[in-house]
Amino acid sequence: MGKITAVSPLAPDHFPDLPVIDGVRFATIAAGVRYQGRTDVMLAELAPGSTVAGAFTRSATRAAPVLDCQAKIGATSDTGAAILVNSGNANAFTGKGGVTAVEAITAAVADVCNIPQSRVFTSSTGVIGEPLPHDRITAVLADLKGALSDKGISDAAKAIMTTDTFPKGARAEVEIDGKTVSIAGIAKGSGMIAPDMATMLVYIFTDAVVSQPALQKMLSTHTDSTFNCITVDSDTSTSDTVLAFATGKAGNAPLRSMDDPGADAFAAALADLCRQLAHLVVRDGEGATKFVEISVEGASSDASAHRIGLSIANSPLVKTAIAGEDPNWGRVVMAIGKSGAQADRDRITIRFGDTLVAENGWVHPDYQEADAAAHMKGDHIAIAVDLGIGDGKKRVWTCDLTHGYIDINADYRS
Amino acid sequence: MGKITAVSPLAPDHFPDLPVIDGVRFATIAAGVRYQGRTDVMLAELAPGSTVAGAFTRSATRAAPVLDCQAKIGATSDTGAAILVNSGNANAFTGKGGVTAVEAITAAVADVCNIPQSRVFTSSTGVIGEPLPHDRITAVLADLKGALSDKGISDAAKAIMTTDTFPKGARAEVEIDGKTVSIAGIAKGSGMIAPDMATMLVYIFTDAVVSQPALQKMLSTHTDSTFNCITVDSDTSTSDTVLAFATGKAGNAPLRSMDDPGADAFAAALADLCRQLAHLVVRDGEGATKFVEISVEGASSDASAHRIGLSIANSPLVKTAIAGEDPNWGRVVMAIGKSGAQADRDRITIRFGDTLVAENGWVHPDYQEADAAAHMKGDHIAIAVDLGIGDGKKRVWTCDLTHGYIDINADYRS
Repeated sequence: MGKITAVSPLAPDHFPDLPVIDGVRFATIAAGVRYQGRTDVMLAELAPGSTVAGAFTRSATRAAPVLDCQAKIGATSDTGAAILVNSGNANAFTGKGGVTAVEAITAAVADVCNIPQSRVFTSSTGVIGEPLPHDRITAVLADLKGALSDKGISDAAKAIMTTDTFPKGARAEVEIDGKTVSIAGIAKGSGMIAPDMATMLVYIFTDAVVSQPALQKMLSTHTDSTFNCITVDSDTSTSDTVLAFATGKAGNAPLRSMDDPGADAFAAALADLCRQLAHLVVRDGEGATKFVEISVEGASSDASAHRIGLSIANSPLVKTAIAGEDPNWGRVVMAIGKSGAQADRDRITIRFGDTLVAENGWVHPDYQEADAAAHMKGDHIAIAVDLGIGDGKKRVWTCDLTHGYIDINADYRS
Repeated sequence: MGKITAVSPLAPDHFPDLPVIDGVRFATIAAGVRYQGRTDVMLAELAPGSTVAGAFTRSATRAAPVLDCQAKIGATSDTGAAILVNSGNANAFTGKGGVTAVEAITAAVADVCNIPQSRVFTSSTGVIGEPLPHDRITAVLADLKGALSDKGISDAAKAIMTTDTFPKGARAEVEIDGKTVSIAGIAKGSGMIAPDMATMLVYIFTDAVVSQPALQKMLSTHTDSTFNCITVDSDTSTSDTVLAFATGKAGNAPLRSMDDPGADAFAAALADLCRQLAHLVVRDGEGATKFVEISVEGASSDASAHRIGLSIANSPLVKTAIAGEDPNWGRVVMAIGKSGAQADRDRITIRFGDTLVAENGWVHPDYQEADAAAHMKGDHIAIAVDLGIGDGKKRVWTCDLTHGYIDINADYRS
């Protein structure tokens, strides 16, 4: 059986010392896609036999790089693989020119890295609706290839930033039958969700020996309970992408299904890492001053709990109340009601922090607003709802809605 | 055949001169439910034989007065009827005490007006989760009854206000077989949707002879294309209520179904009046500086168009872009994509005002941002989307998202 041996801290001002993942090398460069004077392209090269899993935005207006990644996920291959990411331009809503740009970049990367084009993945994040100057990227590929290093992951985390205020990384280690397996992940995002400049991109690397179907299954499961459980502003990007790469260099007994020894521990470590990265995105939410955890239980199903949690987390009235440090539980009741999920008003229990606010459809007789108000003054707000009608539960995370969000988004392109 | 002969203007600074509706009398009073120094209770008394139709919030946490109204709608009766509304307290999430309060008020109104309790309707709007001091209301019923006047409707529009910045009224007249039928309506609401203080309440009065089932059918149809097509902040109240009363005093040929002569014209006049009242609520949206009309066509169905329209109208990124006078069509594309409705990225056409912005999945070659930017400087913004895949269409209305909204809702209870 495996055991998680290390999980890095969450502090947003601390980029963790990420482990070298055997079989992955990184390089970054300033290609001038849109920004000047900073790196804006990263390349990661994966060793032969690496497996790749992915999770993508469900938007009906997905960007060209997303569609290309989706088409390539699932195939198994003994060759190497590569992921190239640019910031500054999303290559979204760019018509046939967008497809041409992806084709040009993936062909050039395949050529430089000597791998099949079907094993080259790309992401683009930044302004929407402008043609991607793909020649600026293909022009620097030889330099990128020459700069590849197994220690480049922290630079990669910086190269993919747009409106992010800090680079985001997390790590986990897990022991499987005496072998230490490492996982390192980087993310960008400052809304879940702001299509111009704040797409969420996540790249996870591990040296575990894990089959593509098993890795995909774990990633899909954990995406649903981590990245799909965060929201900054309810606006879903055209380009959200999570990709996980496993090089197989750790030499552990292969994980081919959840029944294999160590699979549970590896999955738990992967889940922890995904949760850390997801929380970092919310902490860097546009204009955010508070990190908010909403726990829903007693719902008719987990899906129902998820729906109720997101309804609360996305409510502008709940989010502005949190910004105002107001324990306004009436707005939580409203958000439960509008969610469309099953609820019985007279069975609802609500807690703010440790304070029992409401029970059985009305404010609790012992409730003192001063207690809840004290909790709201902190920067980590916990709201717990018990529907009292079933076993469904889910936790979601969000931030408050402040003048900072209006400043960033009303003035951004001006 | 009927003909609509008068529709009042929309200007928010102009409360229209509403017609006297034969068979309805109004009174208002300052009962001190929560506010001091202003009227906060209105009573309307309806003549015997009046029909009543209603539309209500679909929230799972509906307030006690809403549940009581819903249970009473649909019954036919030859007796009079009454509607009593208080502002300052929503009587929502108040447990069994809320039911007791509704029972006490409706019994007392029935007694004073000498009608069955089953014909007494109530609404409450204001703070959530506090017990309604119903004795303050029952104590003034005799005075209210004595003050009833057929000219009191504009005072009634003021008594039901909470955070509204102006009272809202609209009128329509329609000729049915030589008889003039009048419709007058009042509304309150400054979000569609803010559960503490901005519930939307609408009361419509007409002297038409119209059966309860016919009136209910027309009201339900028009609610769906007017009140259900506005949004300020996506937050659905626990107490939204639309009630329509028809006294039958106009003496027109009875309208029992949509096949009766004049039914089309009456329905059209009712729709116009509903749309005017709905627009007034958006114009008074919390913090609003722009009135926004979003027209969706070419969708796979009307329901799909509605979903896409509301996805655009509720997007914080679209709403902040409008506040910033930025023709940020990429955010419109994002909102279409996240709606969950069917869309083909490469068939989408977008217009801002008269300016064709994007066509076939990309920005139009002749597009000049200065043209769209000029439109965004106005206070009436028109965004038109053609999905290019079907015949479904819908128009929805919203306002921008500004610092004013944050000010009102982050600081409101403090």
